[in-house]
Amino acid sequence: MSRGSEIPHSSVGLVETQSVTFRGAEWVLQLESGKTLHPVTVAYETYGRLSPQKDNAILVCHALSGDAHAAGYHTGKPGEKPGWWEMLIGPGKPLDTDRYFIICSNFLGGCKGTTGPADIDPATGRPYGLNFPFYTVRDMVQVQKWLVDYLGIHRLLAVIGGSLGGMQALQWPISYPEMVLGAIPIAATARMSPQAIAFNEVARQAIMSDPSWNYGLYKPDQQPESGLALARMIAHITYLSENAMLRKFSRRMIDGTERGFKLGADFQVESYLHHQGSTFVKRFDANTYLYITRAMDYFDLHLDYGSLKNAFEPCKSSFLVISFTSDWLFPPSQSQELVKGLRQADKNVSYCNIGSDQGHDAFLLPGNRMGDVVSGYLTRLEREDRRAGK
Amino acid sequence: MSRGSEIPHSSVGLVETQSVTFRGAEWVLQLESGKTLHPVTVAYETYGRLSPQKDNAILVCHALSGDAHAAGYHTGKPGEKPGWWEMLIGPGKPLDTDRYFIICSNFLGGCKGTTGPADIDPATGRPYGLNFPFYTVRDMVQVQKWLVDYLGIHRLLAVIGGSLGGMQALQWPISYPEMVLGAIPIAATARMSPQAIAFNEVARQAIMSDPSWNYGLYKPDQQPESGLALARMIAHITYLSENAMLRKFSRRMIDGTERGFKLGADFQVESYLHHQGSTFVKRFDANTYLYITRAMDYFDLHLDYGSLKNAFEPCKSSFLVISFTSDWLFPPSQSQELVKGLRQADKNVSYCNIGSDQGHDAFLLPGNRMGDVVSGYLTRLEREDRRAGK
Repeated sequence: MSRGSEIPHSSVGLVETQSVTFRGAEWVLQLESGKTLHPVTVAYETYGRLSPQKDNAILVCHALSGDAHAAGYHTGKPGEKPGWWEMLIGPGKPLDTDRYFIICSNFLGGCKGTTGPADIDPATGRPYGLNFPFYTVRDMVQVQKWLVDYLGIHRLLAVIGGSLGGMQALQWPISYPEMVLGAIPIAATARMSPQAIAFNEVARQAIMSDPSWNYGLYKPDQQPESGLALARMIAHITYLSENAMLRKFSRRMIDGTERGFKLGADFQVESYLHHQGSTFVKRFDANTYLYITRAMDYFDLHLDYGSLKNAFEPCKSSFLVISFTSDWLFPPSQSQELVKGLRQADKNVSYCNIGSDQGHDAFLLPGNRMGDVVSGYLTRLEREDRRAGK
Repeated sequence: MSRGSEIPHSSVGLVETQSVTFRGAEWVLQLESGKTLHPVTVAYETYGRLSPQKDNAILVCHALSGDAHAAGYHTGKPGEKPGWWEMLIGPGKPLDTDRYFIICSNFLGGCKGTTGPADIDPATGRPYGLNFPFYTVRDMVQVQKWLVDYLGIHRLLAVIGGSLGGMQALQWPISYPEMVLGAIPIAATARMSPQAIAFNEVARQAIMSDPSWNYGLYKPDQQPESGLALARMIAHITYLSENAMLRKFSRRMIDGTERGFKLGADFQVESYLHHQGSTFVKRFDANTYLYITRAMDYFDLHLDYGSLKNAFEPCKSSFLVISFTSDWLFPPSQSQELVKGLRQADKNVSYCNIGSDQGHDAFLLPGNRMGDVVSGYLTRLEREDRRAGK
């Protein structure tokens, strides 16, 4: 599928984002908050081919700042960055597009093509802003189910995702037990710690304290850039481990070793964070950030089902739980709590705590064993599926 | 010394903040940045009595948001909070005012009585604001030396402090080796990690992004409250451990167990942080926050002296290094690095890594062994001092 020398050989090559709008009386989305939403557009991409038996589909769920563009290139122009999980998706890669049909959709309430707070509210003709209803991970999964149905797929070989994507991968076999063969929550949790909620809250406060936020009523080209950049800077610290920061920046100054005796970026780690903040505001919407982080805060399988054992009991899938040793935002202990709950519910679960100094972001970075572990699990899933089919 | 039934028995009771202004040609403060400052006022408190031999003085160094009021009460009115280290200072307490003469001064560049950015610049008649020169931990210690000289004390039995106060306790025996018998850096470091610098930077950005900051030119009663509150909220997360937050708040909601489906405080941990932020702005100055955090960022004994061994070699004091197991801002590994450097420099050093789930804030909280450890070390120091004096 490679269509230009600048595209790496094993990439899925040029791809396009597609979309489908669910409109009509039967498509009124009932949200956990009690509110409804209609119509709902879903942006998605697919890579590889659906098998005639329709038994090779894998749903990829993205994290907070991701989108449907998980792999390949939109233009093929030199210097273009590929999709966000290019390292995992493509011919011969762990999510092997020669074998699997990969689906990735922008989740409900996103700002990358799926209906969200930045979109026009048909009732008013203006952006939803704070009139957008609150949504949960369960609501996101409901909309993904609509998409999977629309694609004519009755069963997913696997659902996979990291961080907030991992929460979706956990929710899928709970909400739709008949539809999932294997679930792969990576760097995920059954419920975020109060510390993680605290970080989300200060990030939201950064946005809402920016006068340009204007209670969510900003114009699309006048969003609270300073607040959103600060929110991203705060969050980005939590995505890296202390050791990763030491390795990348240590205490190096921008101008050699001399202290600048100034405010503003003097250390390299500061200019890196500023760069992360300023690039983020070009590709993300502030109100959307508020809603998504709230959906993360509210995710709580213990609360929703009484216990993890209760939550997982109806599941018919097996599970591969992956954590990273240096992840302090969604620490390994929280993945181990998932594993414990799954075992109490007598589910088939494999667990891998991958050695990495990359922190929470490890699931988005090369240089660790995640790809091999995922690949091995998927091969096993296929084999078991073929055996069960005989 | 107790003067009212509302004052606990072992308190130093009613105290007053005093001040001294260093003025005149011989008191032009030469700063590490190359700038000068004059005049310099220092606010301080003392507890207990200086012995006739003047050999029982202990200097207490405060941390970022502290002040000279380390113990006792200013008014004795019911409900008044005592000084910030009341748990450690008083008759029969580890910093025993029946035995020791305790000094605590607001450090250079503070906003609690010692000359700092919020004070009037005599050259302009307006607050210094961003015209205040950058200062370092070494500069703070230089001004403390002036105060100790002024009090007629030639040698300190000990210098003690936590966090930024611990940096001062480390700098003292390096800057003035003849003047310190024992140094007690608690939850301190020879240099902050890039992660800690990153947290300081996002806190500063929170202040500087607030339009009321106005490049530091705000009026005293119109400071950037929203930005300063956010800075405090961010920093406060780093002072607590994940487990302390779990113990204190878990994922409890303000209104029972139901999700509020709203922005703003819904979880208890959120309303706690908001409270921390809103009370902080009433007692602290935004520009001062910018300068102090920069002084912390710039503290680097490796850079200043070539190595820790070099830094500590001239010291004549012994050392008691204390860390807390759950402190992830100034983690035990950084205290252990100090201990290693001190041993390489052939210094007498005791080290205690105190078990606590209270995080960095443990040095300000009861419920751990810090008091006993400090008390034991001070008794040993006195004994050795008496022996040496014979």
